[in-house]
Formats: sequence, structure tokens, C-alpha cells
Amino acid sequence: MKIVEDALKGNKLAIGRIIKMIENDEDQAKEALTTLYPLTGHSFFVGITGPPGSGKSTLISALITAYRKRGSKIGVLAIDPSSQLTGGAILGDRIRMKRHTLDPEVFIRSIAARGSLGGISRTTKGALIVLDALKYDVIFIETVGVGQSEMDISFLADMTVVVCIPGMGDALQVLKAGNLEIADLFVVNKADKPEADEVVNHLDGMLDMRIGTTIQRRPSIIKTAALEERGIEKVVTAMDTFRSQMKSDPELIARSARHELRYIESITKDLAAEKIWQRLSTSNLLAETLVQVQNRMIDPYSAAQALLKDLLP
Amino acid sequence: MKIVEDALKGNKLAIGRIIKMIENDEDQAKEALTTLYPLTGHSFFVGITGPPGSGKSTLISALITAYRKRGSKIGVLAIDPSSQLTGGAILGDRIRMKRHTLDPEVFIRSIAARGSLGGISRTTKGALIVLDALKYDVIFIETVGVGQSEMDISFLADMTVVVCIPGMGDALQVLKAGNLEIADLFVVNKADKPEADEVVNHLDGMLDMRIGTTIQRRPSIIKTAALEERGIEKVVTAMDTFRSQMKSDPELIARSARHELRYIESITKDLAAEKIWQRLSTSNLLAETLVQVQNRMIDPYSAAQALLKDLLP
Repeated sequence: MKIVEDALKGNKLAIGRIIKMIENDEDQAKEALTTLYPLTGHSFFVGITGPPGSGKSTLISALITAYRKRGSKIGVLAIDPSSQLTGGAILGDRIRMKRHTLDPEVFIRSIAARGSLGGISRTTKGALIVLDALKYDVIFIETVGVGQSEMDISFLADMTVVVCIPGMGDALQVLKAGNLEIADLFVVNKADKPEADEVVNHLDGMLDMRIGTTIQRRPSIIKTAALEERGIEKVVTAMDTFRSQMKSDPELIARSARHELRYIESITKDLAAEKIWQRLSTSNLLAETLVQVQNRMIDPYSAAQALLKDLLP
Repeated sequence: MKIVEDALKGNKLAIGRIIKMIENDEDQAKEALTTLYPLTGHSFFVGITGPPGSGKSTLISALITAYRKRGSKIGVLAIDPSSQLTGGAILGDRIRMKRHTLDPEVFIRSIAARGSLGGISRTTKGALIVLDALKYDVIFIETVGVGQSEMDISFLADMTVVVCIPGMGDALQVLKAGNLEIADLFVVNKADKPEADEVVNHLDGMLDMRIGTTIQRRPSIIKTAALEERGIEKVVTAMDTFRSQMKSDPELIARSARHELRYIESITKDLAAEKIWQRLSTSNLLAETLVQVQNRMIDPYSAAQALLKDLLP
């Protein structure tokens, strides 16, 4: 494919267009991903999540600056559930990151999802495969820490960084519900504020209580002031350490296999569902069943069972 | 089931517990829904969507008051994508609706979704079945008009009401993207503000441009001041008119069949996907394929095809 060749030459426009194809679930997208997949396996995927206003974009921007000094090629995928209707590609209020967009070794893009099954996490995984194949060294996945999305996205990341800020009692409540389980590293941003140590202590206490769960690794807590680029080197060091452990730590190896399996599961289930529905769509059985459900002669759950009786005995 | 019997007697606690079972995707939920489904087919499902702060809850509260005067039994399902982590049941800032919660003929609940496939729309449909079976006359489905959720939910509603307010230029931009297609009625709320007529004219102009699309029906535009309960009777009349047309209007009959089919599709696809994956999970083929994908010997898309080759030839 011409567009894949262009992307492999580093043409950002071509990269963007492949990702757009993935978002739109075009047939060509699968072809591109099949071509690119064998080239993957080099990138380090880092999820950055946290409540709105916690400074995720500012942190990522500061991390890009740090990694660029080493010469690393950096990708950023910004996931914004509310941008689904606009069609992505808009970086919105991520102004601070924009100064990196002219750097040829930095690729930044918003991700939107239109498909129903798998949705945004599937689209994001596709985009990660593209950037991985193009040898981006570190790829940040930025998600707003509300709702289900950051839980889904954590399955795409090798390492998940949860960003907190002082003075958000509610945010800590949210943390309890799920972020505590997905965090590999806590960053307490805007740490120039006096209440920063309270947040650190609070997180520390919550991590103490976590003892006894299946998760063995204890995430570090690092204070940053991303706007002033303070504390950033510590975050980079934590990322480096984590990355180097990935090949030897049994827990991380198992996690990586779980993530891969989950992606295969998601694709296989979708494909199976589409195949089955395609076969049913052309059958008289479906039309008959619809009428039966409409007339309350059968409930939709029993109807589904009946529809699959012959196809999946 | 005891809990279903209790719910049928009007026990709100039991109703809430069945909905909780649906949210958690418990096995018992299917049993309850199968029992309740034959009793459905009486309720009128009305989706209320619009940007945050447009006064959706206030409008619904005023509509409840109007319907209660007639003696109608009313249900409200408040869908809040960001409440997924908290586990629902919290009405948050929907304070105005709270005054109806003590009314035994009014049932109000937030809906959360934990499942991956189908997610919030499937859970909501389950809750609608429960309330329909319990002979709630009108059931309002309140959604925040951002992202994909209100598009998904519009497939559950018989009639969709889009709420706008003066002074939200951005909101009108959002409208263009999708709400224009799903709206059966526009309510311009807070119409005591001077710019209300501008919004009406703007909407009118957008509806003029819609000519030529496949949608034939032109939604009305009604001005309300829900807080002062002004304009509410007009909304009730529009709802009554729409409801009476549902049995005779070919477009509405076809739409209703589409909605039913989509629900059957969603359930059938999930069931098929689960059955297939269950069979694969116990096979050596899956373990072998995972290793091949991990080693980049095969891409995940071809892997999915290969996994399904024998099960769905």
C-alpha cells in the first residue's frame, strides 16, 4: 500500500490518514495493520490518566522535552471520549503540547471512535500498532480519568501513570474506585501547592491498605510541577526502570500476555459476532423472530438463544 | 422469583434491586427480564438529551408534575456516563427531581453500566423493560448530550426531545453533528432570556437545510421556562400527539421495528461472541495463537480469522 510506504518514510500526513482509516473502521485499515504488525514490538506504551485539570498534557509536554534531549522519537495519542462526535484530530485545550507538533520526531494526535464494539480502545490499539511499527520509542496515551475509558485504556499501556493534584478530595474518591489498581506510578502534579504532601500521604495510606490484593508491585509517588518542568527527571527515571523490568519481572510478563490475549479476544469476538449476524440477516428465521419479539410471544433473550441454536449448536 | 413478585406489587426497593442486578450483569437478571418481558408494551419511552446546564432535570421534574395531575405513573432513568465508577443510584445534582421521589407512583434512578459489550444502552434497555412491565405510563431517559451516549440511547426511546438554551453557540455546533437527526422535538429552555428567539430561528434554519435527508418528520420547537413551569403543557401536548401517531405513522412503525431489531442484534451478537470465546478458551489453538502473535509470527487479525476457521467455517 502506497500510504503505508509513505508512513514508513516518516510522512506524518500518511500516518494520520492511516489512523483516520482505523477510526472509520475502513476495510483498508485492516490491510494496513496487517502489513505493519510484523514491524512492531519496540515501543514503550505509557498511559497517562487523571482528572480534568490535573495537568496531564503539561506533564506529557515536559516529558517529551526530556525524551527529545536524548533523541527519542515520541508519539502521543490523546483520548477524549467527548470528542467522538467531532471526528477527532482536534487537540482542543492541549495547547502546551502544540509546541512539539512541528518537531518531525514527535507525532501527536487525538483519537476518536465511531464503532460500537470495542470502540475507543480498539481504535487506540490500532493507532499504537501504527506508531510502534514506525519505531516511535515512547508512546503516551492520554486519557481523562472519568468513567470507564481509563480502565479500558490501561489494558493497552505497558505502564500506567495516574496524575493527581492537591485540593481535589473528590479525585481521591475516584481513585479508590479503580485507578488504585491500574497505577504503576502516581504523579502528584502542581506540587508547589502546600497541600501536595497531604495528597502524597493520602495516596501512601491507600496503597498500604491495598496489601493483600493480587497486585504485588507498589507504585512510587513522585511530586512534579510540570509547568516549571520540575520533578520530570524523576518521572523519566521511573519510566526507564519500569521499562527495563518488563523483560524480567514475572508479574509484568504475565500482564503483557494478558493484554495481548485481551486484544485477540476483542477482535475475535467482533469477527465472530459479525459473521454470525451476517448469516442471520439473510435468513427468514430473523424476520420471524423479530415479529415474535414485537408481539411478546418470545422475550429477546430466548430469541437470541433460538437464533443461535443451529449456527452454534 | 420473589424479587420480581415484590416489584410487581410496586415495591420500589425490589425494582431498584432488579435494576442493580441488570447493571452488574448477574445471572438472575436474565431470569427476571425473561419473566417480565411478556408484561411489556405499554410504556412510552421519551429520551431527554441536551448539553449540561440546559435544565433537563428541571424540565423532567415539571413534566412529572403535569403527568401526575392526570394520574400517570412516571419513571425516570438518568444516564450519566461519568457515574460508572460510583455504581449509579446517586442522583447527584438532580435536586429538583428529588421532590418526586417520595411519590409512590414515581420511580427515579441513575443508571450505571459495567459490562463492556453493549454497555450502558443495554443496561438501560433492561431497566426500561422492568419499568414497562410494571406499567409505568411514561418513562423519561435523561442523557447528557455529549459524546456517543445520547446517540446510543436514542435507539431506546420512542421519542427524543433535545433541550437547548439561549447563549450556547457551541451547543448548536454539537447539534449539527447528530442531535439534529435524532430530535423529534426541540425544547428551547430558559426562554425568558432575550436570546431565546435567536436559538429558535437558528434551529429552524438548520431544520430547513435538513430537507432532502431520509428523515421526513419535522420536529417542532417549543419554548419553555421549566423552572417557572411555563410552556410545559405544550410539551405534554406534543408528547401526546407523537404517542398517538406511533401506531399509524409508517415512519414511526418502521423506526420502532428497527429499534427492536437492534436490541435483538446486540443480545445475539454478545451471546454468539461469548459462546465462541468460551469454546476457544479451552482449546490449545488459542494458547498457540497467542504465542504466535506475541512473537509477531502472525498479526492479530489473521489470528482471529484462523481461530474462527473451524468454529464458523
